[in-house]
Amino acid sequence: MEHAVLTDVDHYLTQRRVAGLRGLSEFLAIPSVSALPNHHEDVLRAARYLEAAFSAIGLERVELRETGGAPAVYGEWLHVEGAPTALVYGHYDVQPVDPEGLWTTPPFAPEVRRGRLYARGAADDKGQVWMHLQATEALIRATGGLPVNLKFLIEGEEEIGSLHLGSYVADHQMELSSDVVVISDSSMYAPGQPTIVTGLRGLLGLELIVRGPRRDLHSGEYGGAVQNPLHALAELVAGLHDGEGRVRVAGFYDDVRPLSSSERATLAKLPHDGDQYLAELGIPAVFGEPGYSTVERSAVRPTLEVNGLWGGFQGDGAKTVIPAEAHAKITCRLVPDQDPRRVYGAVRRHLQEHCPPGVRLEIVSSHEGFPASVVSLDSPYLQAAARALHGVFGKDPVYSRMGGSIGVVPAFQQILQVPVVLMGFGLAEDCIHAPNESFDLSNYDRGMRAIAAYWLELGALRAG
Amino acid sequence: MEHAVLTDVDHYLTQRRVAGLRGLSEFLAIPSVSALPNHHEDVLRAARYLEAAFSAIGLERVELRETGGAPAVYGEWLHVEGAPTALVYGHYDVQPVDPEGLWTTPPFAPEVRRGRLYARGAADDKGQVWMHLQATEALIRATGGLPVNLKFLIEGEEEIGSLHLGSYVADHQMELSSDVVVISDSSMYAPGQPTIVTGLRGLLGLELIVRGPRRDLHSGEYGGAVQNPLHALAELVAGLHDGEGRVRVAGFYDDVRPLSSSERATLAKLPHDGDQYLAELGIPAVFGEPGYSTVERSAVRPTLEVNGLWGGFQGDGAKTVIPAEAHAKITCRLVPDQDPRRVYGAVRRHLQEHCPPGVRLEIVSSHEGFPASVVSLDSPYLQAAARALHGVFGKDPVYSRMGGSIGVVPAFQQILQVPVVLMGFGLAEDCIHAPNESFDLSNYDRGMRAIAAYWLELGALRAG
Repeated sequence: MEHAVLTDVDHYLTQRRVAGLRGLSEFLAIPSVSALPNHHEDVLRAARYLEAAFSAIGLERVELRETGGAPAVYGEWLHVEGAPTALVYGHYDVQPVDPEGLWTTPPFAPEVRRGRLYARGAADDKGQVWMHLQATEALIRATGGLPVNLKFLIEGEEEIGSLHLGSYVADHQMELSSDVVVISDSSMYAPGQPTIVTGLRGLLGLELIVRGPRRDLHSGEYGGAVQNPLHALAELVAGLHDGEGRVRVAGFYDDVRPLSSSERATLAKLPHDGDQYLAELGIPAVFGEPGYSTVERSAVRPTLEVNGLWGGFQGDGAKTVIPAEAHAKITCRLVPDQDPRRVYGAVRRHLQEHCPPGVRLEIVSSHEGFPASVVSLDSPYLQAAARALHGVFGKDPVYSRMGGSIGVVPAFQQILQVPVVLMGFGLAEDCIHAPNESFDLSNYDRGMRAIAAYWLELGALRAG
Repeated sequence: MEHAVLTDVDHYLTQRRVAGLRGLSEFLAIPSVSALPNHHEDVLRAARYLEAAFSAIGLERVELRETGGAPAVYGEWLHVEGAPTALVYGHYDVQPVDPEGLWTTPPFAPEVRRGRLYARGAADDKGQVWMHLQATEALIRATGGLPVNLKFLIEGEEEIGSLHLGSYVADHQMELSSDVVVISDSSMYAPGQPTIVTGLRGLLGLELIVRGPRRDLHSGEYGGAVQNPLHALAELVAGLHDGEGRVRVAGFYDDVRPLSSSERATLAKLPHDGDQYLAELGIPAVFGEPGYSTVERSAVRPTLEVNGLWGGFQGDGAKTVIPAEAHAKITCRLVPDQDPRRVYGAVRRHLQEHCPPGVRLEIVSSHEGFPASVVSLDSPYLQAAARALHGVFGKDPVYSRMGGSIGVVPAFQQILQVPVVLMGFGLAEDCIHAPNESFDLSNYDRGMRAIAAYWLELGALRAG
C-alpha cells in the first residue's frame, strides 16, 4: 500500500542520509548523562538541540516543557482531521559511560566503523529518536504533509527512572491525549527480525550502607576482633539469592502472576541460540532460576540484581584496612502484579532481619519504582505496526516481552488509556548501557522507512 | 642511673623542641606513599631528607642503599669499643591517605592541635623514627658522644610489606651485625602505659577477580539469566567466614600453635576496657572467633580480612548494569607456626572449590608474605629497655603481642640471630592507616627521653 509515497520517502532519506547522520552525530556528541549532576548543563544542551531539530523538520508548538527535573521536548503536527493521533515518546538522556577506559573511541566522539555508529546513546535512545525525526521530515518534505497527527514528547530522565514524567503526563492529560503511544527504545530479537515488544518489566532501586567502626581501622590491630563491614555486606548480598539463583527474600514471588502455558509456548517459539548467547557474552554457562528458560528468566521473571558494590581500598598495591563502611546499589525488575512498594518492603525487611552482628545497616530507597506493563496483541494500532514492519523487513515481527523497563509506560497506559506500541530497532550487540555502545546503520536505515510506513498505515486506519 | 647525663639530654631536647618539630613537619610534608606508583619521586625525596638529617645529627657513613626497590637510608656511629651495638630499624614510607575527604586538615600539611601532631606518618612511622634521631643527637651534643654503638637502617617499603629488605639484610649480614635490633613502630597499650611488644603477626595478601560476561550488561535485558559477578563475589567472600567469625577455609587453623595457659593469663592481665573499646570505635558490639577474648582475637589468633571490595557502578544515581568483573583484596594475619605459603594455598583452594557457576575466577598472590614472630622475655637487652621505660614513665612496661606485622622482623631474627626489642610510643587513638592520623606529643617527648635512657642502659651492659 501507498507504494508511491514510500518510494518518494525512500528517495528523500537516501539523498539526506549524510546530512541526517551529521545531525545525529552532533546530538550524540552532547554528553547528556542524566545520572551525573555535573552533566546537568549538557542535559539542557541536548534538550535545546532537539528543540531546534523539531522546529527544523516542521513540527509546531515546539518547546521545552518544565517537568520538575530535566525538561521534556514537545512538538506536534496536527493537521489531518479524523486521522488517528500518535504520541511519540523517547529520551535524549544517556547512561553514564564508565568504565571509560574500555571504550575504543571516546563515548561522545561519534564514529562510524564497519556499518555501525559508535557513541553513548547511539541506540539508547538518541539514535532511535532521531529516526523518528528523519522519517517524519521525509514524509512532510516528500509529500507535503503527514498522513497522521503526531505529538512528540522526548524526555531527559529516562535513564534515571523517569522521575518526573509520570506526574507531567497526569497534569497534561488533555494535551497529550492520543490514540496510540509509539516508542522506539527497544531491540529486535535478532538481526533482520522485526520485533514488537509486548511487555516490560517494572523497576525499583535501593541502596544499602553497612556501617562499622567510626573510622577505617588497621586490619592488623583490629582484624579478628571487629566485624568487617565488607564481610557483613558480602553476607547480606550473598543471602539475597540461593545457590541456584532464586531470590531468597520472603514474599518476593508472592504476587507474581503465573505464566500461562500459551505465554510460555509463545516465548519458547522465539528464536534463541544458546551457544551463540554464551559465545557473544563470553560466559561459561547461563545461570538463573531453576525451571525457567533463559528467555523467561531475562524477560518475564522478577529479578534482584546488585549493580554496584564497594568499600575499602581499591588502588594498586595494598592498604590493610577494615573500612568504616561498605555500599551496595540494588535494583529489582518486576513482572505483572508485583507492587513496587510491597517488594521494596519485603527486601528491606529481609536485609534488616539478616544484618550480621557488630554493624549498623542503612537502607535508602533510591527509586520508588513502577510496575511492569503488558500490551495487548489485539490492538489495530499494533497490527498496523506489524504490517509496516513486514513491508520493510520482508518478515512478520515476533512479539516479545522485554526484560528492561521504560518508566513512563505504566503512566501512559493508566492515564492516557491507550495502547503502547514498542517498535524498536536496536540489537543485543549494540552494547547499550556498556562501553562501546553502537547502532547498526542498516537498522537505522530500515527503521526510518518502517516508521514512515507505520504513519501511512495509521493514516489508512481512518478509512477503516 | 646516669642521672646527670639524662638531665643534660632533657635540657637539650627541651631547648631544641621547636626546631625538632619543625624538622619532623618537613619530613611529614613529603607524601612518601610507597603503595602508589605516582608517589615514587616523593618516596625518594623522603629518603634524601632523612639522609641529610642523619648527617646533620652526627651519624657517619650516611648513604642511600639500593635494595632493588625504594632505597634504605643507612648511617652509623661506632666509637665505643666493647659496648653493645644496636641496629635501629624504622620506615620513612607511609600508607595511602584515602578517603582523603575525611581528613580535617590535609594529610601532608602537618598541624599541631590540642597536643597532637596531625599528618599521615606522624605516628607510623616518621614520627617515631624522628624521635630516635633527636634522642641520638641530644646524647651526642650534650655529652660529646654515645654510650653505645648504633647503626640506623630506615627503609621505604614497610607499608608494602618490606618487599626487598629481607634479601638486603641477608646480603649485608656482616655490616648489619649487632647485638640487638631496636624498633619503634608500635603502640603503647594505653596512655601512660609503656609497652614492649613481644610478638607480631605475619602477613600474606591476595587479590580475587571474578569475571563474568565480556562486557557490562544491561541488568534489565540480562538480569536473572546470567550470573552476576557481584553476586558471585559476595557468595565467595561470605563463605570465607562462618556466621560467628571463624575462618571457614579448610586447613586454615591446622598449624596454629595453641596458646599456653600462661600466655592466656598474661594477655588476660593486660588492661582492656570493653566499653571504652566500643565507644572509641563507635561499634554496637565486638565480633570474632568464639572462645577468645578481644585481646586474643586481635593479637594472637590468625585472621582473614577483606581490605577492599568493588565492582559495578559506584556513582551518584543509578546505572543498571551487571558488571563484567568484580574484585576483592584480601590479607591474612598469621600467628606462630603458620607458613604463609601453606595458608595461601589453602585460601586459594577454598576459593576455587567454592566458585559459583557461570563465572571464572582469577586469584593473584599480591604479597607472598612472611611468618609471625615472637620475642623472648629473657633477653638482657629487653630487660634494659624495661628499665629505661620505667625510668621515664614511672611504671613497669607491659609485655604485649601485637596484631600488626613488621615484615622484616622475621629476617632480623633468622639472619642476624639477635633479639628484637619493639618499644613503640603510638596509641590506639593515633588512627594509623586511617584518616586524621596523629601523634601524641607527650609520648613524643617522653619517648625521646626513654630512647636516650635505653642507650645509656645498653652502654652500662658493657660492664656487666
